[in-house]
Amino acid sequence: MRKPSIVILGGGYAGLMTATRLQKQLGKDEAQITLINKHDYHYETTWLHEASAGTLHHDRVRYDIASVIDRSKVNFMVATVEEIQSANNKIITDAGEVPYDYLVVALGAESETFGIQGLKEHAFTITNVNQSRRIREHIDLQFATYAAEDEKKPERLTIVVGGAGFTGIEFLGELGNRVPELCREYDIDPKKVHVICVEAAPMILPGFDEELVKYAKSKLESKGVEFRIGTPIKEATETSIIVGKGEEEVEEIKAGTIVWAAGVRGSSLIETSGIENMRARVKVNHDLRAPGLDNVFVIGDCSLIINEEINRPYPPTAQIAMQQGEVVARNLTALVKGQQEGLETFTPDLKGTVCSLGEDDAIGVVFGRKLTGTAASFMKKMVDNRALFLIGGLGLVLKKGKFKFF
Amino acid sequence: MRKPSIVILGGGYAGLMTATRLQKQLGKDEAQITLINKHDYHYETTWLHEASAGTLHHDRVRYDIASVIDRSKVNFMVATVEEIQSANNKIITDAGEVPYDYLVVALGAESETFGIQGLKEHAFTITNVNQSRRIREHIDLQFATYAAEDEKKPERLTIVVGGAGFTGIEFLGELGNRVPELCREYDIDPKKVHVICVEAAPMILPGFDEELVKYAKSKLESKGVEFRIGTPIKEATETSIIVGKGEEEVEEIKAGTIVWAAGVRGSSLIETSGIENMRARVKVNHDLRAPGLDNVFVIGDCSLIINEEINRPYPPTAQIAMQQGEVVARNLTALVKGQQEGLETFTPDLKGTVCSLGEDDAIGVVFGRKLTGTAASFMKKMVDNRALFLIGGLGLVLKKGKFKFF
Ligand SMILES: Cc1cc2nc3c(=O)[nH]c(=O)nc-3n(C[C@H](O)[C@H](O)[C@H](O)COP(=O)(O)OP(=O)(O)OC[C@H]3O[C@@H](n4cnc5c(N)ncnc54)[C@H](O)[C@@H]3O)c2cc1C
Ligand SMILES: Cc1cc2nc3c(=O)[nH]c(=O)nc-3n(C[C@H](O)[C@H](O)[C@H](O)COP(=O)(O)OP(=O)(O)OC[C@H]3O[C@@H](n4cnc5c(N)ncnc54)[C@H](O)[C@@H]3O)c2cc1C
Repeated sequence: MRKPSIVILGGGYAGLMTATRLQKQLGKDEAQITLINKHDYHYETTWLHEASAGTLHHDRVRYDIASVIDRSKVNFMVATVEEIQSANNKIITDAGEVPYDYLVVALGAESETFGIQGLKEHAFTITNVNQSRRIREHIDLQFATYAAEDEKKPERLTIVVGGAGFTGIEFLGELGNRVPELCREYDIDPKKVHVICVEAAPMILPGFDEELVKYAKSKLESKGVEFRIGTPIKEATETSIIVGKGEEEVEEIKAGTIVWAAGVRGSSLIETSGIENMRARVKVNHDLRAPGLDNVFVIGDCSLIINEEINRPYPPTAQIAMQQGEVVARNLTALVKGQQEGLETFTPDLKGTVCSLGEDDAIGVVFGRKLTGTAASFMKKMVDNRALFLIGGLGLVLKKGKFKFF
Repeated sequence: MRKPSIVILGGGYAGLMTATRLQKQLGKDEAQITLINKHDYHYETTWLHEASAGTLHHDRVRYDIASVIDRSKVNFMVATVEEIQSANNKIITDAGEVPYDYLVVALGAESETFGIQGLKEHAFTITNVNQSRRIREHIDLQFATYAAEDEKKPERLTIVVGGAGFTGIEFLGELGNRVPELCREYDIDPKKVHVICVEAAPMILPGFDEELVKYAKSKLESKGVEFRIGTPIKEATETSIIVGKGEEEVEEIKAGTIVWAAGVRGSSLIETSGIENMRARVKVNHDLRAPGLDNVFVIGDCSLIINEEINRPYPPTAQIAMQQGEVVARNLTALVKGQQEGLETFTPDLKGTVCSLGEDDAIGVVFGRKLTGTAASFMKKMVDNRALFLIGGLGLVLKKGKFKFF
């Protein structure tokens, strides 16, 4: 009898968790497992704000997928997925076609610019290692150029961050620590630097505890961050952003660096895959299968899970992505072993949320308790280490973990 | 009786040597000494190719001038000289006017582009710390951008160095070591990188021993450097250089980075100073005074010293600049102490020349002996340390010296 083939797209939190669990649960003869990822490394998407600001080197943020994969059970293919043909049970990659019996789509998120003019061309996004180190180098060069040029352009020292959600705030926290370093590095007066957060909503971190939000805002302001809330970005140009001011007016803010951190959507490959979706995200069944497709699972940022208590989707997180990976691995194991009905239902088990404000500070609600400062920062690093532990065990934690707690 | 005031312009090799010698030779009551420099730090101009390539951090290349100056004797002023008025015995700076009784001009060199179109706008020059770290950051960003962009521009990975003289070759040597690091850093195939040296003359390192030149060329070629000799640069654009090809034709070489290392001239301030000069360099008298001016000394790269054996100027070097500083300090001491005639004549004492080919390799002629490889590289570091020793003593050598010999 032919072994069924399982193909996993994406080696992020969701995909890699699925692969590492499957390799424990299935014998060599039970299935042929293929993991396809763009790079030979996995990166911690939740740490990319640090690599982008330059507070953590990007090599600290990634590790070889080969180091956590059992090659005797999982065929690891470094390739870029170009098309998902769910009608033909086939994947098109830049390294050839891959047919599947079972598919796991875990391609993560893409940036969403909501059609705002110029953002795609002129703003950076914190979406992967390549983009993050480019942001870092771009900011470095702005400072170096400012120091070297005869006619100084003050806007080189202005960094605009669009969006005061999780990613925006965490990036601002890192910038708060990084800017003084850059000023020392390039002999620049810190007073000349402007870090501006522009947010359309009337508050920062919507949905977060009010007291914690206040703490975060005042801590970031003390590090020099200027907030412009209730201020929508209308357009980005090569040298500035144009924001709304009141009902009618607009204002131009000159800026050497624009980082857009205000929106994500699922992988655009989903839109042409034949899988039912909304903005490239799939509202999956309880067992994490795509509607109407018995052999396709969609997890991580590509999936949409409804919180039935409030009838709104859960915000996509690494926490949920990894938990989904575990459930999908068990459901696939059941399917491969012949079970047809009663697959496991996925229910998020949310332990809390911590938002970093830089190396040394954070806010969070963990097991229902509010935390700030070093306690929250400690928890954040524990969460980061936990992700490593779940995928690669203690060895990976020791190699890549964060231990500088205070 | 009023103390005579001595003003030294520039805290490079020549100026700082003058200041540190003078503070030993003159008592507090004998003269008022002022050193004016653009920055609060001295940098090793002879190490700038390393800071530019990114093989040595720019903080390793500079130190605080205050740490080698005796503040009780030398008034150190951080200011940019804007005009030298030799007719009025007065200096104009961005921090005010400074009158002098005796002047030492030691403002170093500027890049000379020989009127080649576009070079000023589009090429970098290895002229000071500000420019060097900008080159480094620019190259870094080219690699980071190449890794991140969807439609890759291969020319981002092309670095053109104009000029195969000392500075050009030393910079190429560093790039030879740096490029593999950059490729690892940004996950780029080294085969995609092109480092091209374009030189109008029919050979590299004109004037250097032929056998050593051959060694240098083949070592650099083995590190991936491509030489285009006998090839004049006609023009630089934002994205390329245009070079001559045969008699009539031209060729465009696309390049993300263009570094012009082929020509230097004296400080342009000399041209409006009322001091006789040729291309901003002053053909000084034997005692290092400017022709016709009894109270103005010009030293370092701003001076022109003729080698009478061959009736051609000595190439400007740090070695000569420092020796001139010593002589000027003695001559000024004599003048201040009332001696009017018979000032000391300057004669360069050339111990040899070493040209670095990167951290681990060099070529040189030292005390008449030819050296290559680690022996030459060792000598190079000894020369570098000697400059520190002469200005700041053993303490400075220990703090800033180069000890990684092999
Ligand atoms: C700066 C930042 C901070 C965050 N902080 C937190 C936090 O503190 N806590 C939290 O829970 N969540 C956080 N998140 C959200 C979290 O990172 C995501 O929810 C999580 O990464 C989703 O996991 P995933 O497996 O779906 O996608 P990812 O982990 O992003 O993995 C997607 C994988 O797919 C690969 N891929 C993509 N396209 C292709 C293709 N065409 N071909 C081949 N491979 C492809 C990618 O290379 C990548 O390896 C943060 C996000 C960001 C950006
Ligand atoms: C990459 C490179 C490698 C080299 N390698 C060697 C080598 O191996 N051996 C060797 O002997 N020579 C070498 N040289 C040449 C050597 O560096 C110069 O000959 C030497 O620096 C000249 O010394 P200087 O004191 O005249 O000028 P510098 O040492 O350049 O000092 C000039 C000073 O003047 C200051 N200044 C300039 N303009 C103003 C202003 N308007 N107002 C105030 N301050 C101002 C500058 O900040 C600087 O501190 C090299 C040069 C380069 C660029």
